[in-house]
Amino acid sequence: MKSPIIFLLAVCFSLFFIPAKLKADDGYKLWLNYQKLDNPELVKGYVNQLQYLIFQAESPTLKLAKAELLKGYQALLDHSPLDTNHLMLGAVLIGTPKSLRMLNESILQTDLHSINSDGFVIKRLTIHNIPTTVIAANTDIGVLYGVFRFLSLLQTRRPIQDVYIVDSPAIKHRILNHWDNLDRSVERGYAGQSLWDWHKLPDYIDQRYIDYARANASIGINGTVLTNVNANALTLTPTYLKKAAALAAIFRPYGIKVYLTARFSAPIEIGGLKTADPHDKDVINWWKDKTAEIYKVIPDFGGFLVKANSEGQPGPQNYGRSHADGANVLAAALKPFGGIVMWRAFVYDDKVPDDRAKQAYSEFTPLDGLFEDNVILQVKNGPIDFQPREPFHPLFGAMPKTPLMMEFQLTQEYLGFATHLVYLGTLFQETLRSDTYSKGPHSWVRKVIDGSLDKHSLTAMAGVANIGTDRNWTGHPFGQSNWYAYGKLAWNPASDATEIAKDWIQMTFTNDRDFLQDVKMLMMHSREAVVNYMTPLGLHHLMGWDHHYGPGPWIKDKARVDWTSVYYHKADEKGIGFNRTSSGSNALGQYAPTVRQYYENLKTCPTTYLLWFHHLPWNYKVNEDTTLWDALCYQYEQGVQDVKNMQLIWRKQENKIDVERFEQVNNLLAIQYKEAKWWRDACLSYFQSKSGLKFPAGVIAPPQPLAYYENLTFHYVPGI
Amino acid sequence: MKSPIIFLLAVCFSLFFIPAKLKADDGYKLWLNYQKLDNPELVKGYVNQLQYLIFQAESPTLKLAKAELLKGYQALLDHSPLDTNHLMLGAVLIGTPKSLRMLNESILQTDLHSINSDGFVIKRLTIHNIPTTVIAANTDIGVLYGVFRFLSLLQTRRPIQDVYIVDSPAIKHRILNHWDNLDRSVERGYAGQSLWDWHKLPDYIDQRYIDYARANASIGINGTVLTNVNANALTLTPTYLKKAAALAAIFRPYGIKVYLTARFSAPIEIGGLKTADPHDKDVINWWKDKTAEIYKVIPDFGGFLVKANSEGQPGPQNYGRSHADGANVLAAALKPFGGIVMWRAFVYDDKVPDDRAKQAYSEFTPLDGLFEDNVILQVKNGPIDFQPREPFHPLFGAMPKTPLMMEFQLTQEYLGFATHLVYLGTLFQETLRSDTYSKGPHSWVRKVIDGSLDKHSLTAMAGVANIGTDRNWTGHPFGQSNWYAYGKLAWNPASDATEIAKDWIQMTFTNDRDFLQDVKMLMMHSREAVVNYMTPLGLHHLMGWDHHYGPGPWIKDKARVDWTSVYYHKADEKGIGFNRTSSGSNALGQYAPTVRQYYENLKTCPTTYLLWFHHLPWNYKVNEDTTLWDALCYQYEQGVQDVKNMQLIWRKQENKIDVERFEQVNNLLAIQYKEAKWWRDACLSYFQSKSGLKFPAGVIAPPQPLAYYENLTFHYVPGI
Repeated sequence: MKSPIIFLLAVCFSLFFIPAKLKADDGYKLWLNYQKLDNPELVKGYVNQLQYLIFQAESPTLKLAKAELLKGYQALLDHSPLDTNHLMLGAVLIGTPKSLRMLNESILQTDLHSINSDGFVIKRLTIHNIPTTVIAANTDIGVLYGVFRFLSLLQTRRPIQDVYIVDSPAIKHRILNHWDNLDRSVERGYAGQSLWDWHKLPDYIDQRYIDYARANASIGINGTVLTNVNANALTLTPTYLKKAAALAAIFRPYGIKVYLTARFSAPIEIGGLKTADPHDKDVINWWKDKTAEIYKVIPDFGGFLVKANSEGQPGPQNYGRSHADGANVLAAALKPFGGIVMWRAFVYDDKVPDDRAKQAYSEFTPLDGLFEDNVILQVKNGPIDFQPREPFHPLFGAMPKTPLMMEFQLTQEYLGFATHLVYLGTLFQETLRSDTYSKGPHSWVRKVIDGSLDKHSLTAMAGVANIGTDRNWTGHPFGQSNWYAYGKLAWNPASDATEIAKDWIQMTFTNDRDFLQDVKMLMMHSREAVVNYMTPLGLHHLMGWDHHYGPGPWIKDKARVDWTSVYYHKADEKGIGFNRTSSGSNALGQYAPTVRQYYENLKTCPTTYLLWFHHLPWNYKVNEDTTLWDALCYQYEQGVQDVKNMQLIWRKQENKIDVERFEQVNNLLAIQYKEAKWWRDACLSYFQSKSGLKFPAGVIAPPQPLAYYENLTFHYVPGI
Repeated sequence: MKSPIIFLLAVCFSLFFIPAKLKADDGYKLWLNYQKLDNPELVKGYVNQLQYLIFQAESPTLKLAKAELLKGYQALLDHSPLDTNHLMLGAVLIGTPKSLRMLNESILQTDLHSINSDGFVIKRLTIHNIPTTVIAANTDIGVLYGVFRFLSLLQTRRPIQDVYIVDSPAIKHRILNHWDNLDRSVERGYAGQSLWDWHKLPDYIDQRYIDYARANASIGINGTVLTNVNANALTLTPTYLKKAAALAAIFRPYGIKVYLTARFSAPIEIGGLKTADPHDKDVINWWKDKTAEIYKVIPDFGGFLVKANSEGQPGPQNYGRSHADGANVLAAALKPFGGIVMWRAFVYDDKVPDDRAKQAYSEFTPLDGLFEDNVILQVKNGPIDFQPREPFHPLFGAMPKTPLMMEFQLTQEYLGFATHLVYLGTLFQETLRSDTYSKGPHSWVRKVIDGSLDKHSLTAMAGVANIGTDRNWTGHPFGQSNWYAYGKLAWNPASDATEIAKDWIQMTFTNDRDFLQDVKMLMMHSREAVVNYMTPLGLHHLMGWDHHYGPGPWIKDKARVDWTSVYYHKADEKGIGFNRTSSGSNALGQYAPTVRQYYENLKTCPTTYLLWFHHLPWNYKVNEDTTLWDALCYQYEQGVQDVKNMQLIWRKQENKIDVERFEQVNNLLAIQYKEAKWWRDACLSYFQSKSGLKFPAGVIAPPQPLAYYENLTFHYVPGI
């Protein structure tokens, strides 16, 4: 009972002695935490350059942009620029060629032609001999994006005397997927309830809806799927459409479109039809009518996300039709209105395959070229299911005639829920920068996604949201960094995860140099830590049954073998790992030859994927000095030490930020340390029961017998 | 779709133009909204009197009191008093005779002897010729209560030059009951999830736990039952006890004890016994051991709350034993540690009685005198179930040998959830001031509760909490007033609901005189409004099936007749109402003769209870001019007009408070108006189908046929 008391005293203490800048901060403001800059020199420079504002804001979006700018100036610089219509020293010009005639100057036209409809230009230039700062775009939403970017320059104390940024998003649809149910529970959600209060909608407008839209706009997210992929047909009834329309109206000026999940059997469940066969005329008409009805209340409706014939969801295969048949019915209904279908490729059918990792590829590659042009396939980053580390999904690069979009998971279903500090920027980057070799070297996954590899104009990225009603949105204060990093990488998949982390820290916490240095290091290593203590050396799918909480390498004898752990690690007295080489399931055959050879050859296969692709004997030499068994033990031990180091690094930050968030992270790291040890002890205990080998020096035997870990039971685990 | 857009513009607008005092306020601070006083004269007077602080704060509770005082001074007066050890002009002395030797002066001793252990004295007096302000108590918690009261004097701008308050609570245990489940759902909760994050406890300490304790302490609440009366035996397992202990450690310095609900069958479910028979030795020992185990981790554990043999809960009657047998087993286990049993009298057994209103009295009065002296019976305010209006429960005054405690419901299960503005201070007051006549006139319910009528020293009051994770705690900003009023009335059941409303408005919103006047009126009438549009003239139990959302006067043919609406209103072509006189169920026979006669005689029975006690023909003359049918129609219509007036009054307050709360209440009143019309239309439509009579002038016929209202269906209604 020590920690609560210590925390209480800290809170108590804090009321007296902490300086103003360390006041309690509940994390609600996210990265838009416009803290007053404390460097007078810097402030003076900024203020001088930002004396006057030439910004005619007529549209709702431009009004929001202007309000944001003034709010940011006030908070960061304690300064309110004056409105003017004339060029003068210290003026900032903001707008589109339509909203502000001055922006038609030829010098800016060139820049504006080089950006797309969501892009913007931030530029210091001389107009009529007067040095002027310009934030310009072709559209109102581009201006809002530009304003947010400009404010982030001040938040991160960048020089703006000679600023020249020309930026456009590489991906058209940058979307959050909410696995939110109509009863406000969130599947795999660990940050409270769903933000959407369906019961009180459409009448009651929660302030959070507005703040959610603003946060998303600030990082360029422009779409949100409100409802769970495990869909409820009621979503498409008039009652709920009215509610969704109220949200769409709030999100609209922030440039955010609403999408809904379509349950494939909705024509039966709410339409009164006897079939949902995509070739049935009534079904086709039902989807047409339903779609028209939606556009009546949501004129800029984005489209449907569909999970079909996967994990019990109904789909076209129930009627002997293909995924393309199913997707195309919805696509035809949406097409007149400009909507799209995002069809999930996360499928595994009723028959257990020889290797689940192969199934999506096997099912979808034959359909390449058969989809309507407003269909995009939504593919998870890896072939299994959002594990701490997976190789890139073999579908990337394998369907050149079909637009593919990326699905990342921000909510930490398999990465410690909202209690483990895991920065996912590195995970996202790892996948996006993977080379598919589908058109030779440099056929990176990110080039599949941004459409450049196969010349697709329909491009998208989805992130499964980690957001809920928790005051700080994501439960863990560092969960916010994953929302932020996702937005940044959806805008530009070539972005650098380190730079993203750096900006996020500065915008969210402080510009203190030591804090920045330490915490950046902590974040950048955090994902390796979780891989080490959960699933090192390419292991995967070792988590607890159903709730996915904690370790469960012993899980076996379930309705499907590919829902068990033993199916994936295949550990026995001789060895461990899943042979996906040509002598095994040959899942490697789904990759381009260069990739296949790289992973198939034990000399080149990196240890990070060793047991993903190979089944090896316990005494296999990972390197000259170390057997596989010893390496496995060392990795688990390393994971625990990693978290201990994270704790040490964090504790050094006391007094550099507010007490509230400092203590939150302290509390959470203590849980993470406890659970890292649990993972290590449970997994090593289990694997030792197979290998029968001794623990190497430096690795202490688990304090409890294997049965203890196997028998731990948990009630009411969140997220299911 | 108008409202969201208007709201957006309002928010947008607010960024520019609103004065500082109208900044957004999310309501999190409750009545502890220490806003800077804007009257310089007043501030000067306060500050002069509060220059120095003689306050040696060693204990955790005194430390909290001191921190609170400094926080309040800073926020209200922008002033920090200096610490000193010597009497001087402008000094405030704070403490107990133990913490501060100066308080042993005889002049204060007299006051301190006149208060109990939770009481305090706030007094301006002259010590050694120096005018001095004193906040003194016999205990540390008394000091904390005194400090909160003192700050409330400043919040409400009361003069303090000659302050002299000597105050003690009239009730010993002032308790919140949380109907919170271990999965964080809240039965009949409409303000988000349970505050208790069981999954992350005991390691993660949410700031809200601390703020919850502080808010309760500020109004004298000193106990909290963490778990639902529909209890889960897991609550009493070591895993959950450790979690409850973490909460108890946080609440302890705030003077708040933790209680748990005990599932009567726990000895079987988690104890491995074959019976839960209270006469069984193993069962008796199991409860003894379990209780000792609890006190090991929660040394100041308050005791058990038990719902037994009611609505499917197990209890002693399953073994042919009485409620007293059941309660006494737990009482014996708790007694050595000073714990108490709160045994709920809300029972109705498997056999449907002739009148459910009679059942608790029938079951419990024969047991008077049979309970151990650390058992208290927890009785709901009325004999049915927290209806908008009920007469006081006949048990009050009918069990002189048994301590009885009051159970009020703050969460608005039957009063519009968290979307209707209903101030319950008037409802609570109405019950507490009801005269039972059990020992002649002035045998008020409040004297039963405070122990003075029958000389009981064990006294308690329970309020079923309306609190959840919603940012403003209660969903509706005015729900906070019910938490506040409950605390105030639990401290002093003779308090005046108007005064409580006035203080709450000033502390929560503003001291603006017009706002205070208008909003006080609105609050004071709000409960009559909800009675009018839901259950006028003594009607009751007309709500929707199961979820209790909206009207359902047509509910019939359920497993039990006393779960239907028709059982209670008994409307047919001839008349309406439940005959509880001697010619009917004779429930009135359970009251003292004076009370019985008053309600039985149609000449004296107030119209507010007419149909509660009488079945009358539609053409019965309520007064010279009005038939019962017409009166019923008028009351429903009046209820709708009442809400319209509330809207008008509220809209006048724009710019007097922050935009965020102003708009929230605006939104919610719009829902309330819509739902008031729905209640009126559905109920009148239904009752007309019985009476066959025309609507009187001024009452418009419902816009839809009865079948429309009967067929409305709702999914995922919160609170179940």
